[in-house]
Amino acid sequence: MKLVRFNGNRLGLWHLDGIEDITSRFDLALSWPALPGDAVVRQFYERRDHLDTTPRGELIPHGSVRLDSPVANPSKIIGAPVNYKAHIDEANSDTEINTGKVYTTLDAYGLFLKANSSLAGPSDGFPRTFPDRRTDHEVEMAVVIGAECKNVDREEALHYVAGYSIGLDMSLRGPEVPSYRKSPDGYAILGPWLVSPDEVPDPDALRLQLSVNGDVRQASSTAYMLFDTRRIIEYASRLYTLYPGDIIMTGTPDGVGPVHAGDQIHASVESLGELLITVTA
Amino acid sequence: MKLVRFNGNRLGLWHLDGIEDITSRFDLALSWPALPGDAVVRQFYERRDHLDTTPRGELIPHGSVRLDSPVANPSKIIGAPVNYKAHIDEANSDTEINTGKVYTTLDAYGLFLKANSSLAGPSDGFPRTFPDRRTDHEVEMAVVIGAECKNVDREEALHYVAGYSIGLDMSLRGPEVPSYRKSPDGYAILGPWLVSPDEVPDPDALRLQLSVNGDVRQASSTAYMLFDTRRIIEYASRLYTLYPGDIIMTGTPDGVGPVHAGDQIHASVESLGELLITVTA
Repeated sequence: MKLVRFNGNRLGLWHLDGIEDITSRFDLALSWPALPGDAVVRQFYERRDHLDTTPRGELIPHGSVRLDSPVANPSKIIGAPVNYKAHIDEANSDTEINTGKVYTTLDAYGLFLKANSSLAGPSDGFPRTFPDRRTDHEVEMAVVIGAECKNVDREEALHYVAGYSIGLDMSLRGPEVPSYRKSPDGYAILGPWLVSPDEVPDPDALRLQLSVNGDVRQASSTAYMLFDTRRIIEYASRLYTLYPGDIIMTGTPDGVGPVHAGDQIHASVESLGELLITVTA
Repeated sequence: MKLVRFNGNRLGLWHLDGIEDITSRFDLALSWPALPGDAVVRQFYERRDHLDTTPRGELIPHGSVRLDSPVANPSKIIGAPVNYKAHIDEANSDTEINTGKVYTTLDAYGLFLKANSSLAGPSDGFPRTFPDRRTDHEVEMAVVIGAECKNVDREEALHYVAGYSIGLDMSLRGPEVPSYRKSPDGYAILGPWLVSPDEVPDPDALRLQLSVNGDVRQASSTAYMLFDTRRIIEYASRLYTLYPGDIIMTGTPDGVGPVHAGDQIHASVESLGELLITVTA
């Protein structure tokens, strides 16, 4: 099951032959103070075993809609740094990436946050900012949490997952802390949809790839993650409560590099679809 | 004008002789996808010149309510590190604080983020976590944004402020990035209320003080901030869009130090009130 958000406030299931509008199956009325997180992801998680996936009524042609981030209202966007050994090695050998710091282990580095205001979807393009500074692509597998949880053990970690998506953790290079460098508007791209866990039997065995203008830059597998999906959730939930719609970007493999205005980024993660993003100035 | 949130979902004006419930003056109905930020702060900002502050009806005794964070649904909680020279000096001379890093300037360090899930209010107490690790108090003046803005010039920066509050940027010490160390549940305390700018003629001239069990630990003034209030807003808004309810903790002066279960933290900022927080295990 692939949940898409489209045209801003519509919800759909992505079928091979078109999009089925299922907006009416969700309760979209909220009241202040809002519960933390995304109300649709919460309901998708709670009801996904009962959502009828047999297409009904007219299907909307894929190409006729604007695709948005499948999560609209995250409480937080978490990033797992240094989670692939080959990326740690390249970061430590490139002074433009490490700016004099030594990248060690995720345990020592901790998780970083990206501003919620940086979240963007497949149709938004990528608005590269600060033209005089290097901005890199980082393709990642993204986990979206479905239910409030704290202090989750690894054995139960996947129970709290609403689904998976592709995450692009776009990053300014420079001396500042990651929560600054990775937080300009549009620097957290999520999409193209939220894939329910039944379609992702093993999140720790997914091929990832990213190319720029047709040249493959990153090609790896989540099998190489140093903290696997369960351990990241366990580690994160020891620190803070996770809420429905919380996005965890699980780290990038080696091959990160700069993008420039006009570039076409093509990212794919096995079972999760693909993103085609145009870099704008 | 002092806006308080109390008993979870009630809004009030704090008068000398009691709290006036003004919940009915706000439109609390929302719908998914929610606009970024806090709907009440947005309305408070838009209507504050028209909110009748003459108490009407029965006033609620101050001591009879539970006070919550005056912002319920922030889009982001921003922290300004290294914004007082005396704190930079103490951090660089205390290896438990700097863990081998050199603290330089805010320009080089960037702004950090605290998880929205770390937000707490005056009546929540402080749930100290990870008992084997040092957790420090940091008293700060907090700015709450009232309107969406981007690329704000310093001359116009204060125009976007909904109000001011006291912020406690509670912090684990250790090697991890600040967005991790400063984000456990309950580590961002805001309160006791949101003070409208007409009562704070100069946010860059407010005395701050924090004591633990009666011993004064921090005593300074926002006059010593290296980035003043306008410059912080300008700098932040160059990176990302600010939304109503975004909280900017403007940095802590020297005197930071550990707290332990059972401690009583008393924090005050001139014109903004005071917080009395009990540290729990």
